[in-house]
Amino acid sequence: MTTDSIRRLNAADSDFDTQLQQLLAWESVADTRVEATVAEILQQVRTRGDAAVIEYTNRFDRRQLQSGSEFCLPQAALGAALERIPAAERQALEAAAERVRAYHQRQLQESWRYEESDGTVLGQQITPMERVGIYVPGGKASYPSSVLMNAIPAKVAGVDCVAMVVPAPDGQLNDLVLAAAAIAGVDQLYTIGGAQAVAALAYGTESVPQVDKIVGPGNIFVAAAKRAVFGRVAIDMIAGPSEILVICDGKTDPDWIAMDLLSQAEHDQQAQSILLSPDTAFLDAVEKSLSRLLDELPRREIAAQSLAGRGALIQVASIEEALALSNRIAPEHLEVSVEDPEQYLAQIRHAGAIFLGRHTAEALGDYCAGPNHVLPTSGTARFSSPLGVYDFQKRSSIIYCSPEGADKLGRVAGTLARGEGLEAHARSALYRVTE
Amino acid sequence: MTTDSIRRLNAADSDFDTQLQQLLAWESVADTRVEATVAEILQQVRTRGDAAVIEYTNRFDRRQLQSGSEFCLPQAALGAALERIPAAERQALEAAAERVRAYHQRQLQESWRYEESDGTVLGQQITPMERVGIYVPGGKASYPSSVLMNAIPAKVAGVDCVAMVVPAPDGQLNDLVLAAAAIAGVDQLYTIGGAQAVAALAYGTESVPQVDKIVGPGNIFVAAAKRAVFGRVAIDMIAGPSEILVICDGKTDPDWIAMDLLSQAEHDQQAQSILLSPDTAFLDAVEKSLSRLLDELPRREIAAQSLAGRGALIQVASIEEALALSNRIAPEHLEVSVEDPEQYLAQIRHAGAIFLGRHTAEALGDYCAGPNHVLPTSGTARFSSPLGVYDFQKRSSIIYCSPEGADKLGRVAGTLARGEGLEAHARSALYRVTE
Repeated sequence: MTTDSIRRLNAADSDFDTQLQQLLAWESVADTRVEATVAEILQQVRTRGDAAVIEYTNRFDRRQLQSGSEFCLPQAALGAALERIPAAERQALEAAAERVRAYHQRQLQESWRYEESDGTVLGQQITPMERVGIYVPGGKASYPSSVLMNAIPAKVAGVDCVAMVVPAPDGQLNDLVLAAAAIAGVDQLYTIGGAQAVAALAYGTESVPQVDKIVGPGNIFVAAAKRAVFGRVAIDMIAGPSEILVICDGKTDPDWIAMDLLSQAEHDQQAQSILLSPDTAFLDAVEKSLSRLLDELPRREIAAQSLAGRGALIQVASIEEALALSNRIAPEHLEVSVEDPEQYLAQIRHAGAIFLGRHTAEALGDYCAGPNHVLPTSGTARFSSPLGVYDFQKRSSIIYCSPEGADKLGRVAGTLARGEGLEAHARSALYRVTE
Repeated sequence: MTTDSIRRLNAADSDFDTQLQQLLAWESVADTRVEATVAEILQQVRTRGDAAVIEYTNRFDRRQLQSGSEFCLPQAALGAALERIPAAERQALEAAAERVRAYHQRQLQESWRYEESDGTVLGQQITPMERVGIYVPGGKASYPSSVLMNAIPAKVAGVDCVAMVVPAPDGQLNDLVLAAAAIAGVDQLYTIGGAQAVAALAYGTESVPQVDKIVGPGNIFVAAAKRAVFGRVAIDMIAGPSEILVICDGKTDPDWIAMDLLSQAEHDQQAQSILLSPDTAFLDAVEKSLSRLLDELPRREIAAQSLAGRGALIQVASIEEALALSNRIAPEHLEVSVEDPEQYLAQIRHAGAIFLGRHTAEALGDYCAGPNHVLPTSGTARFSSPLGVYDFQKRSSIIYCSPEGADKLGRVAGTLARGEGLEAHARSALYRVTE
């Protein structure tokens, strides 16, 4: 990798805004052919159930399924995988799961009620969803950490049944993924994937129960299928490529920062790694570290393409300017690698996850710090949150009027209903008004 | 209206499940012509900004706009409307707003942090969205109560700028709607509507700032536009027709219950009103009340069509069976008109809003009880919540590792990252591990 293979920008340049916009530009391309294919798959599964799921699975995953029961993996298979994997990995998965569970417990929302002076009671009742589906990609992108991050919040929320789908191309499954499902407490596992798996979860089939929400990452067909069933079931956000924004005062080891940037870049070629620093010499040093460290990585080709295509080292005037820029970018991951980082927290308005201090590598958040690694990408941190327990709970309003409350409120409602021309609304309220 | 104009069902009938399914069947029809029209409007507004908004608005709303400034309504116009409306309506709007504000204040979420024994700090930071867009339909369906219900939660959340769009067909605006906007604290108001208004909010134009989330009801073009921009901005759920499910022990005045059913039915022909009771004589009495009361309503034709097409009086064996049925239906509005209704609260799993007791007309919730009237329809209460302050707040995870914490977590993350074949992740974590 040559030193010109990552973009260098300066926030003081007159055309910086344009350059930044170009750097961030990314949009999932709506592919009408993909959408048409997915619409057909959804329709087939909806009307023909298991039979359609089996046909697509045999075709796309090169399998020889004959019946729905063959793609239902028994719980014993999860336990067996957990026994098979190396002890070090099992311990690491269990340690990670424990921390993720502990953090997410704090997100649990509680029902509340209050009584007004006239005896009227108002409140909000929290209940978990009944059934949730988790999509886990197969093959090389099949990550046990994703199983933990998607399933544990649902289980903490109290979801009755967490159903997981994971494709098994050529019949192959990843033992670490199955072990993670066992640790996370996944209730049902189906070895199917693609749009047909999303359809099975959204509509239900003879073998797959219909779920209330579908979460988890997938390829373009999975994303299109989730978008198409949105409304019939809930979905999480459609994720874009992963990104990291690092703000550094120049006093962290440049190798550490370079490796943090590379850890995003190795995800895929579209991943984005950006460093902001007021220290020019530090930017130079990180650029050198990147060149050197890149060569040592097994995934160096992907990382090099990501850095060259979407990476940037940006000179800023100050940490404050960096924070302002960060709020414009609304990054998925924000590393604040500076002295006394907590002083800046109040200035951070939009970010999926915030990693404070020189010792907090973003990768810790990917696996085991506790917070979720499913985070809003592509600037959607402006309006979205990390996946959490709250994604699997829902609220019902409670209104319980005393006769006095009904009298008082009925008059107000009557007036407003007539203002809107809704006479039955008015009368329904006014029946409960005592003269 | 004849007595056979509302369906009578019995949960004990052998074909009841099928009948119930038919009764509930409703699905927004994806109309490809609408989608194509909307896609064109979105594209035009995205590329040509105000010019396109003006063209569509002049065409669809029969206006003669020449520049963007003409569809920006000054704050003074809101205040003037507030002065113009009758005092009774102003007082009712202000009373409703105060109660809605008080209830929603309780939904505010707070940031939290905790420190682990090794000094590592984990937390969740809550921040409001910056800009939110509220869609308010024009013409006859232009409801001041909707303005309050959509804008107040955003303001309580701390959103910097609440921008409202409302079409002004033939230049006409509803004073009550403008007055409600003044009371709710709407920051900016644009007299535009349709897919072009959604596009302006989603992409921004010279006159309309881009927002982070778009909420509020609209016609099929508005719904299609919201669905199309979902992901670029956040949206609320796409609403179906309004519904009420009443459970009654037979001891509430049948006229009250009939009027509650009619208050849903008068919304539109697709609205759904269902009563469940174990008391046959009471079902008969309500049926009679419906016939009689219907004739007195200005919107009797709409209500009659709604009752005949989608309404039902259902005989159940017990209140418990009624509650089980209600959980299957997951109604938008659930009225539990029985003695000591609170005893049943724990059995209610899925409902948008729960109205307890004989005195709590659903209409109170539409206007002034306090909880939101934007509620999940068509069974989506299985996975959705009322609109609330939480819809305008978002969360950022916080991770701040002590050197000891980074050491401990780095080892776990290193093992798991290598298990996933992500070497840069592993090294980034392991750099912070002290031997």
